Amino acid sequence: MANRPVNFSPGPSILAPSVLEEAARAVLALDGVGLSILEISHRSAPFEKILADARDGLRRLMGVPETHDILFLQGGARGQFAQIALNFLTPGVSGAYVDTGEWARYAMEEGKFLGDTYALASSKEQGYAVLPPLAGLSPKAGTRFVHTTSNNTIYGTQFQELPDFGATPHICDMSSDILSRPVDVSRFAMIYGGAQKNAGPSGVTLLVIDKAFMESARKDIPKIWQYRVQAAKDSMFNTPPTFAIYTVGLVTKWLEAQGGVEGIARINEQKARLLYGAIDGSDGYYRANVAAWEHRSRMNVTWRLASEDLEKAFVAESKAAGLSNLKGHRNAGGIRASLYNQLPLEGVERLVEFMAAFKKAH
Amino acid sequence: MANRPVNFSPGPSILAPSVLEEAARAVLALDGVGLSILEISHRSAPFEKILADARDGLRRLMGVPETHDILFLQGGARGQFAQIALNFLTPGVSGAYVDTGEWARYAMEEGKFLGDTYALASSKEQGYAVLPPLAGLSPKAGTRFVHTTSNNTIYGTQFQELPDFGATPHICDMSSDILSRPVDVSRFAMIYGGAQKNAGPSGVTLLVIDKAFMESARKDIPKIWQYRVQAAKDSMFNTPPTFAIYTVGLVTKWLEAQGGVEGIARINEQKARLLYGAIDGSDGYYRANVAAWEHRSRMNVTWRLASEDLEKAFVAESKAAGLSNLKGHRNAGGIRASLYNQLPLEGVERLVEFMAAFKKAH
Repeated sequence: MANRPVNFSPGPSILAPSVLEEAARAVLALDGVGLSILEISHRSAPFEKILADARDGLRRLMGVPETHDILFLQGGARGQFAQIALNFLTPGVSGAYVDTGEWARYAMEEGKFLGDTYALASSKEQGYAVLPPLAGLSPKAGTRFVHTTSNNTIYGTQFQELPDFGATPHICDMSSDILSRPVDVSRFAMIYGGAQKNAGPSGVTLLVIDKAFMESARKDIPKIWQYRVQAAKDSMFNTPPTFAIYTVGLVTKWLEAQGGVEGIARINEQKARLLYGAIDGSDGYYRANVAAWEHRSRMNVTWRLASEDLEKAFVAESKAAGLSNLKGHRNAGGIRASLYNQLPLEGVERLVEFMAAFKKAH
Repeated sequence: MANRPVNFSPGPSILAPSVLEEAARAVLALDGVGLSILEISHRSAPFEKILADARDGLRRLMGVPETHDILFLQGGARGQFAQIALNFLTPGVSGAYVDTGEWARYAMEEGKFLGDTYALASSKEQGYAVLPPLAGLSPKAGTRFVHTTSNNTIYGTQFQELPDFGATPHICDMSSDILSRPVDVSRFAMIYGGAQKNAGPSGVTLLVIDKAFMESARKDIPKIWQYRVQAAKDSMFNTPPTFAIYTVGLVTKWLEAQGGVEGIARINEQKARLLYGAIDGSDGYYRANVAAWEHRSRMNVTWRLASEDLEKAFVAESKAAGLSNLKGHRNAGGIRASLYNQLPLEGVERLVEFMAAFKKAH
């Protein structure tokens, strides 16, 4: 594992070497079982323990109170965009969405197929390079939930704090910053996210849901789409994605060894300060997309160079230097470095060195 | 891998040692990429090739004509039960279901939440130990599709041939026998199945769908649930379960080396004949749940002993003898041996030897 490229992929994303090594061993055979994690029944005692360990790890790390259930689902955030609307947007109520970029908008667009939706706030006119102010906003009467996106991977913005919306349940898509910092879970009706950025491989969706909110959902929809059914069956109403859940469990153990979300948040902050510092200190050679520190994502740092040709050269030469996946999203252009939990500080140090050398050479 | 237990698990199920070894290597690092299969972007060139290889492997093995698309989805057969109804059960039409056991019934129950459904045939009164005759059955006017379950894992029945239903589209849940034998795909509007029995680990759902049938579905539902959207995006409308798809690709290569579905069908037939022969030749000590050879599953062989105590002893002693997961489903009781593709003939030989020794001892 010594000469691996530094992996800045926006997702699926870098995993810690110790996680990969243990996962590879389990693909051959689980200790004490003699069979691969890929071929044991989800109803077997070894898998029941794997599921419980992953769930308990998440509960400890995120400080999930007993008022909330933890579920492992499939279908990613896109699946949740639809499932949320199906469960909660009955006739006569609306879903309020905070529009902070493509993913927030996709959530609303899927909801629109099934019920009434509206944008509570938007930073579209500012090209999503800032976050709309949320404090003091009041959802209109009959709003069933407010939906927010805590971190926006394409443009590189992130709410450092999310407000309450009075009595209106708050649903937050934390796909790209779940487990990266402390969050007061008790304030959310629901938190969800694909695992493939901070928590594991693709193929499993993490969900934390307030039990009372869950029980208030529709009961006249297919069982597979009812959260309560999955909660009652401990995420095994259908065959769960066993290997992805196993790997999430390994990541929770790794994260606890880093000092939990408090510990990793300090390192994430350090990584982000180092990289934004290199951009801001480049005398305009590198230009950050997002100006304000309080709007800047600690997960996805995005910036431009003077021309697209120079950006192409940057991506090609960084790749040759062992820094992979730095190309920006096609909608935002430029460069993007994703600094998820398992990307070590040394990875950012290497990137910053490369940036200085590139500036000198071009 | 030498002293592994023989794995008769009903799913997730046994995988070939060569598949596990290659998958474990890829979890450490993909050849030529240097990063793990778990941490590369689904938009990267290496993953695009992995997806194309898995899809092309399925197309060759199943003989999927160009009239049909191949999709990799999430959510398993349970997800499809709901998604099929959502896509096709508009007001004024009905879904016809052939009731051959729990899974067939679950499909209909989920459909009922979203539209009109009815049982076209059922063997419930025979305790699902036989298959209802289907030849000559006519769906009623306004039937949008007929849904069948090709193999029934709980009771151990399997259609050796599935009829056409005139002009009515035929949707078949092949979760537990996909890729186990030749099938004329052109006769089906849709074939689907979770991968975790014959085709790979859990977490990915294989889907083969007639393009014209797909285009005839509703367009006013969330995009994530529209088959055409996933087809247009080559199964990457959302982040796909990358590792599960990678492993399906390994299984398709393994299967081609066994002579494809024709080759594996011969071995599956041999395994089933050996085991049913041991049951039928035991002078009533072992009693098969399903009497008729043409109704007997080649995938899941189910039988009883004289008492539940004896069955318990059989499960415990077989486990101690290195034969794992032989306990029957709680709804059917008794013993169940799942003989999926990757279970070698030697595994069944060991089981049959054990059965003779157990009979002698008890």
